[in-house]
Amino acid sequence: MNAQTLQQFSIALRNNKLFELFVVAVIILSALLIGAKTYAIPVPVLNAIVYMDWLITFIFLFEITVRFIAEEQKKRFFTKAWNIFDTLIVVVSLIPIEDSELAFVGRLVRIFRVLRMVSIVPELRMLLNSLLKAMPQLGYVVLLMFIIFYIYAAIGSTIFANVNPVLWGDISISMLTLFRVMTFEDWTDVMYETMAVYPLSWAYYLTFIFLTAFAFLNMVIGIVVSVLEEEHAKEKAEADLASGKPTIEDLSRQLEELKSMIRERG
Amino acid sequence: MNAQTLQQFSIALRNNKLFELFVVAVIILSALLIGAKTYAIPVPVLNAIVYMDWLITFIFLFEITVRFIAEEQKKRFFTKAWNIFDTLIVVVSLIPIEDSELAFVGRLVRIFRVLRMVSIVPELRMLLNSLLKAMPQLGYVVLLMFIIFYIYAAIGSTIFANVNPVLWGDISISMLTLFRVMTFEDWTDVMYETMAVYPLSWAYYLTFIFLTAFAFLNMVIGIVVSVLEEEHAKEKAEADLASGKPTIEDLSRQLEELKSMIRERG
Amino acid sequence: MNAQTLQQFSIALRNNKLFELFVVAVIILSALLIGAKTYAIPVPVLNAIVYMDWLITFIFLFEITVRFIAEEQKKRFFTKAWNIFDTLIVVVSLIPIEDSELAFVGRLVRIFRVLRMVSIVPELRMLLNSLLKAMPQLGYVVLLMFIIFYIYAAIGSTIFANVNPVLWGDISISMLTLFRVMTFEDWTDVMYETMAVYPLSWAYYLTFIFLTAFAFLNMVIGIVVSVLEEEHAKEKAEADLASGKPTIEDLSRQLEELKSMIRERG
Amino acid sequence: MNAQTLQQFSIALRNNKLFELFVVAVIILSALLIGAKTYAIPVPVLNAIVYMDWLITFIFLFEITVRFIAEEQKKRFFTKAWNIFDTLIVVVSLIPIEDSELAFVGRLVRIFRVLRMVSIVPELRMLLNSLLKAMPQLGYVVLLMFIIFYIYAAIGSTIFANVNPVLWGDISISMLTLFRVMTFEDWTDVMYETMAVYPLSWAYYLTFIFLTAFAFLNMVIGIVVSVLEEEHAKEKAEADLASGKPTIEDLSRQLEELKSMIRERG
Repeated sequence: MNAQTLQQFSIALRNNKLFELFVVAVIILSALLIGAKTYAIPVPVLNAIVYMDWLITFIFLFEITVRFIAEEQKKRFFTKAWNIFDTLIVVVSLIPIEDSELAFVGRLVRIFRVLRMVSIVPELRMLLNSLLKAMPQLGYVVLLMFIIFYIYAAIGSTIFANVNPVLWGDISISMLTLFRVMTFEDWTDVMYETMAVYPLSWAYYLTFIFLTAFAFLNMVIGIVVSVLEEEHAKEKAEADLASGKPTIEDLSRQLEELKSMIRERG
Repeated sequence: MNAQTLQQFSIALRNNKLFELFVVAVIILSALLIGAKTYAIPVPVLNAIVYMDWLITFIFLFEITVRFIAEEQKKRFFTKAWNIFDTLIVVVSLIPIEDSELAFVGRLVRIFRVLRMVSIVPELRMLLNSLLKAMPQLGYVVLLMFIIFYIYAAIGSTIFANVNPVLWGDISISMLTLFRVMTFEDWTDVMYETMAVYPLSWAYYLTFIFLTAFAFLNMVIGIVVSVLEEEHAKEKAEADLASGKPTIEDLSRQLEELKSMIRERG
Repeated sequence: MNAQTLQQFSIALRNNKLFELFVVAVIILSALLIGAKTYAIPVPVLNAIVYMDWLITFIFLFEITVRFIAEEQKKRFFTKAWNIFDTLIVVVSLIPIEDSELAFVGRLVRIFRVLRMVSIVPELRMLLNSLLKAMPQLGYVVLLMFIIFYIYAAIGSTIFANVNPVLWGDISISMLTLFRVMTFEDWTDVMYETMAVYPLSWAYYLTFIFLTAFAFLNMVIGIVVSVLEEEHAKEKAEADLASGKPTIEDLSRQLEELKSMIRERG
Repeated sequence: MNAQTLQQFSIALRNNKLFELFVVAVIILSALLIGAKTYAIPVPVLNAIVYMDWLITFIFLFEITVRFIAEEQKKRFFTKAWNIFDTLIVVVSLIPIEDSELAFVGRLVRIFRVLRMVSIVPELRMLLNSLLKAMPQLGYVVLLMFIIFYIYAAIGSTIFANVNPVLWGDISISMLTLFRVMTFEDWTDVMYETMAVYPLSWAYYLTFIFLTAFAFLNMVIGIVVSVLEEEHAKEKAEADLASGKPTIEDLSRQLEELKSMIRERG
């Protein structure tokens, strides 16, 4: 079997719907094994799981090899983020680990195999891409929110550090405490504690809640508006171009024709 | 009385507004009885409730029989989900139960009778249908969210199982704990406990909260956009078709007529 | 001074901007007095407050009398809900109360005087009216939500009553507990308690949370869509009517005129 | 170097992109120093921080002086809120403080220097301006919400003051407690306590939650609608003016020309 035949065979296999379904099934099996390992299971079953684990790793290796061979321009293969992710997951799974420390890492890598579900199912990949695309639009709101957090955390750790060092010891702990306040998680316990020493500290918490809630609201509205605008633009473009219906411009052209006709005959 | 007369009588009764109101009243009575039974009530009243319960069951049986006879194509009757639900509820209510275990199930079935309210009132039925119709659109977002939950639960039960087996013992318990974290319910208690052993575990909780909040936000926006699009399409279709107002196409046609008129006379 | 002069004087006073501002100031003073009374204040100040209270009552009485005299059709005065509310508040304030039980009611009535702010400021009155107008649109969603609550409360008090009668004793207590679960307030405490007896009861809580969250989401979207539609319709009507710009119908009419002109001259 | 050369030099420096980046870097350094001071750091590092603090203060002083000299109309400099804010922060930082009480204020002022980030980065300044612009639209809803809070707090402190004076002692404490109830923070603890004395007090909490949730919802929808309207108006204005496409008015004009042409030649 020469190289070209191999590539044609690989392309056929990659585009085969049944092969795709088989890989999805293997990923689901891999996810179930990961779940099973968190239960207290008898030793023989655990051994079986280890063997199946290796089988899954080799199936994944085979699948990526097929996709690599099927790729016409080899260099382009590693420019796609998902291909790099898939290869990395498989390569790390292949390393035989004896050390207990690294075995732990190995277990975590096996968990991330479930993410291959996203790399295989096109709808999920598109969904994640659209989520990532929405991120930069939020950039400045996130920066503003971080500044609010930073200033309040600096004030909090300056004033309240001696009240409760566990919650306000330094600026990073204070930021965690403020995140807790933002999620309303037992925030009154935090407030009542500082109010016992500084009776006016309720103003600190209330202004913080209002500012973050307001900034968050703005963020949500920002996303909604940008999503709606996109939809609107798409809709309009479709309506304008795809439809064979006459537009106002067509009417204007027809009128101009009429005028010249009258001029000629007049 | 022959079969045809019976059917005509049934149709008349089924479409009768008063009969419908009577059935609604019986359903409300049935709901009140269910509520009453949860209070400590004297034995004679309890006996009265049991008799009324049977009366309600027979009224429901009568009503479904009427609807079945009124149906012109008997086969189509059981293709409607609500008819099957109604029949099932009545049939199970009719089974006389002595066993205390089954009596429990009987009580639960009587509670589900309140759902007959939805099957009788058309507005509620339409509302529920529209809710169910919105479900598949969310399919892939729900799947993505499940994958996020599964991966975090696998990581959580791998790392934190020895910190607190009650919360992180296996993957299903971990998923419940993560749902708790998503609802912000005492999530800092969970976090502080694992931070005592793994000081960097706050990153686990914060990334999880951001990912699920972001996915949830996306889901909500997805629904809003799809609902608005539907409304928009409906509105446009109405505006285009129903109104007798001239459209741009009509204008174009008029202009063409003008041109041919000038050509003829020119 | 005859009746007609009195009415003209009343109308002038009622429409006087300064008089309105004076009444608003008195309402604010009344609100401040209510607030002051909740603090431990020395007896002489308390006495002064009682006198001012009577003064405010008489100013309100005077203001309503003015508005009543200014009304041209006396019968229409009591068809407006806010007039009835204002009169009631003043009349009840006027009753001298000795009994301590009733004195309590008197204090509550004085608190509701603050609501006169809404009856005086037109913008607030409009805002409240628009809130009330939005209510009926939500009717069926609220009914559906109540049915969900009722069914879950019936199931809850049937199964969990022996686990914790304080939370699940009867159907009304169960509904309060479920409202607590819906607000995510220590809902895991409630769940863990029943899970100790019925290990599968997490399904009860999770389905309830999903159902109510979904119904609530639908409610919010319903309001947003109806509000946007209203805005859209208003906008369109304005664009169509108010503007002197030619519409497509105008163009069509102009074309028809052209045709008849050509026909005549052709 | 005469005054005019100095001004031209200042303008050049102010508009220099590198200088702006340098100032942003200094602000970030200033923020990092503030964060560092909240940790337990050795004395020599602390001394270094104090020196860097003075360096930052002088850089800020230099930057504001440059901006002041660059300003062509000196009077207009202090009409811009951000200029006043910047100057104030720098001036207060310059005052040498010995007293420990004032040293505390000095530390707080240094924290607010981080806000200079907003005054320097134009995108953040615009974001904050748009947030502030949205405020007045909410005016009456906020007033209505405050009235709801005030009335409920007055009722609460009248009825529940003897149940728990820590939560319901006077009207301001009651408002804080009600804010806690609105954020669902351990609100059932507050409710169960008063229900032990007044069994019907659940109605007080539930009506409050519904009213505030409803008013809040209205507020959010109000913002969404106004933002969308703005976007819509902007979009329409752009479509109308910027595009060279013919409008319905253009068509109407062309038709009128046609008519007059026919009239002349007819």
